[in-house]
Amino acid sequence: MKTLEPLLEFLSIPSVSTDPGHRDDVRRAALWLKDRLEALGFVAALHETPLHPILYAERLVDEKAPTVLVYGHYDVQPPDPLELWETPPFSPVVREGRVYARGASDDKGQLWAHVAALEGLAARVNVKFLVEGEEEIGSPHLLPFVRENRERLRADVVLISDGAMFAPETPTLTYGLRGLCYLEVRLQGARRDLHSGAFGGVAPNPIQALGWLLARLKDERTGKVLIPGFYERVRPVAEEEKRLWPALDEEALKRELGVDCLPGEEGYTPLERLWARPTLDPNGIYGGYQGEGSKTVIPAEAGMKLSMRLVPDQDPEEVADLAEAYLREILPPGYRLEVRRLHGGRPVLTDPFSPPMRLMARALAEVWGRPPVYAREGGTIPVVAELQEALQAPIVLLGLGLSDDNLHAPNEKFDLLNLEKGIAAIRRFYELLAEEGLQ
Amino acid sequence: MKTLEPLLEFLSIPSVSTDPGHRDDVRRAALWLKDRLEALGFVAALHETPLHPILYAERLVDEKAPTVLVYGHYDVQPPDPLELWETPPFSPVVREGRVYARGASDDKGQLWAHVAALEGLAARVNVKFLVEGEEEIGSPHLLPFVRENRERLRADVVLISDGAMFAPETPTLTYGLRGLCYLEVRLQGARRDLHSGAFGGVAPNPIQALGWLLARLKDERTGKVLIPGFYERVRPVAEEEKRLWPALDEEALKRELGVDCLPGEEGYTPLERLWARPTLDPNGIYGGYQGEGSKTVIPAEAGMKLSMRLVPDQDPEEVADLAEAYLREILPPGYRLEVRRLHGGRPVLTDPFSPPMRLMARALAEVWGRPPVYAREGGTIPVVAELQEALQAPIVLLGLGLSDDNLHAPNEKFDLLNLEKGIAAIRRFYELLAEEGLQ
Repeated sequence: MKTLEPLLEFLSIPSVSTDPGHRDDVRRAALWLKDRLEALGFVAALHETPLHPILYAERLVDEKAPTVLVYGHYDVQPPDPLELWETPPFSPVVREGRVYARGASDDKGQLWAHVAALEGLAARVNVKFLVEGEEEIGSPHLLPFVRENRERLRADVVLISDGAMFAPETPTLTYGLRGLCYLEVRLQGARRDLHSGAFGGVAPNPIQALGWLLARLKDERTGKVLIPGFYERVRPVAEEEKRLWPALDEEALKRELGVDCLPGEEGYTPLERLWARPTLDPNGIYGGYQGEGSKTVIPAEAGMKLSMRLVPDQDPEEVADLAEAYLREILPPGYRLEVRRLHGGRPVLTDPFSPPMRLMARALAEVWGRPPVYAREGGTIPVVAELQEALQAPIVLLGLGLSDDNLHAPNEKFDLLNLEKGIAAIRRFYELLAEEGLQ
Repeated sequence: MKTLEPLLEFLSIPSVSTDPGHRDDVRRAALWLKDRLEALGFVAALHETPLHPILYAERLVDEKAPTVLVYGHYDVQPPDPLELWETPPFSPVVREGRVYARGASDDKGQLWAHVAALEGLAARVNVKFLVEGEEEIGSPHLLPFVRENRERLRADVVLISDGAMFAPETPTLTYGLRGLCYLEVRLQGARRDLHSGAFGGVAPNPIQALGWLLARLKDERTGKVLIPGFYERVRPVAEEEKRLWPALDEEALKRELGVDCLPGEEGYTPLERLWARPTLDPNGIYGGYQGEGSKTVIPAEAGMKLSMRLVPDQDPEEVADLAEAYLREILPPGYRLEVRRLHGGRPVLTDPFSPPMRLMARALAEVWGRPPVYAREGGTIPVVAELQEALQAPIVLLGLGLSDDNLHAPNEKFDLLNLEKGIAAIRRFYELLAEEGLQ
């Protein structure tokens, strides 16, 4: 496969955006991609930011032809823990039809499908590439760039492959993403750590207080989030939308997770809870003594990371306001509370049957020999909501990865069959678009 | 002061019992003390254990004379964090009437008072010293030694200085100690860490579950421990005992802790809650992501350290059984629970007016010019209950430290005034004992 060799080259560049030691590598990855796009006839340039450059490239053939904007990212997660990789993360290898490397699925491999699809394809559609090097650190500079270059980025469809298929050999069109509101909650009790013998009985204990807060945030029996107003803006799912959904194999999911039940909000199916219901989960907690054995301390401080996945029409800032107000209201006496807002992303819902989605569905059906399933995703891609709002164009989310691709984990991989079929489907999409346009 | 120089020598030996690198130093401290006791006419020997030796020494003058057993420990806590010490922890210095060094108050300085008190004192009482080098690691080998040497250790009174005075310039006789039941509680949810976007809504979250457990362990409103049967064996405090207690300066305590209230069990005063009521406190908690910023993980595991201070007649093993049974009962579905028992110690209550306590009260009154206060302590000295049971002798707990001595913390200190007056009071106690005996 002539598309594989360049991908292996791309994957061998350790473009870890969070690590200052890899700053030059990140730029190298951007430049590598720029060269590739220029070889395909694109006019490309790196746009500097205070950190990693944004690559913007365009190949405009006819202003009356439809315009596609492809978004992707060339940066990758850190490879730690290194010792758990079977082969080095930046020495890509192919084993049993999969390429193993950091970034193989997220997102270099999926992005590469969009580049490779253009090779040898007649240029009858305007194509723009917007590729950033800061996705893994929250895209701090992409949004201002998008707002400032709205005209230039204008497109009839935004095409993104940075996700997963619903199941192996199941072409998938994703039309919804959850949003995110991520907080850090810290409690301070006494001025200093205290001996639990000398002061137990009069000292505030921030760990105990975190426990009380957690129990008041989420009902143990019903799994409901107890923040007043939390569910107010949640858009119910129409029965006809649910009929669109594929069946979730709950037994397989339980086996995958190694659990004997799937706890969650009462009154909703697991798939609804994953795709269309908001959640609250503590993602980390700390305080006091964590080492081996015992230490009889009442710590002065304790804290937790607390995130909520949001669904349309919840707004991350509004939810953060509600959560903070509630935390202040239920805070027991004797503690100082600090709430920091770490991260946010708006939920996305797009029309599953928009004209470009319908074209892509046909392309997928031709290549895979079966029609795609329509899926939402439980995760968040903050930039999607931003692109949708800034460009007011329909979005096509075409995930080519699989849920076992080990994103953000050791031994990340990407199935070459999905690369191959993905390239074919994208080519077919361009052909259909050139022939039929978008009605 | 001729008693100071040897103490500085004793304090300069880094006898950190938990650190294998200091094993020889621990032995050196034991040998140093052995020499000192032999110089006072004691027959002394080190008794080997699998770890650090027990020093036993005796000076028997007359089998009809009363016998005193002094208990203490020659090992110390680790000095970390070193950078917070104003002067090096094992280079003792005197500043403003206090000696600063690791072990100054806990317990070398207080133990030294009992050795120095004997210097030049006519030997009219049988004296035994039982000094261990493993107190700071839970006295694993002392108890078997005590049980095997019950006859040899037999005494009319056990004298221990390893605690604090109620307040500065307030001679204090302690007649009660709380016990301890220390558990580690771990929860496992899924088989591996999960992405909170991809699985939030169906995945068990062990951090959230720890919160539910904590809220069910201790009532937020009343401060009561909710474990069924927890309070069943708690001996109420008689009004006459409470009348014995000194007044607690609650405002001063709040200032010391930097808090605006003293949260605790409703219906009891702060002093009762510290001395005569059991408590439950998480001492540490961990799970998920604890670093800077955000990580959207639902961890597979989370855990906490959980300790309960006990009062007569609660029993650590029984309380551990109750707690574990309750935790298993309230465990939400979807989690595996592991409870490890890390540490225990039985509570102690002695007669505040036993004959040796009355003698020591007179000695303290003479030296300080004011009668002692009678206090319980919120902390635990597990060996006291063991000695009390094994030897069936009255215990005199004479704390010579102060609450601001920085035990287990940087800049540990011991007030030389308390050393001096302590020595004088102990000498006077021996004189009164020789003259009047114990009725």
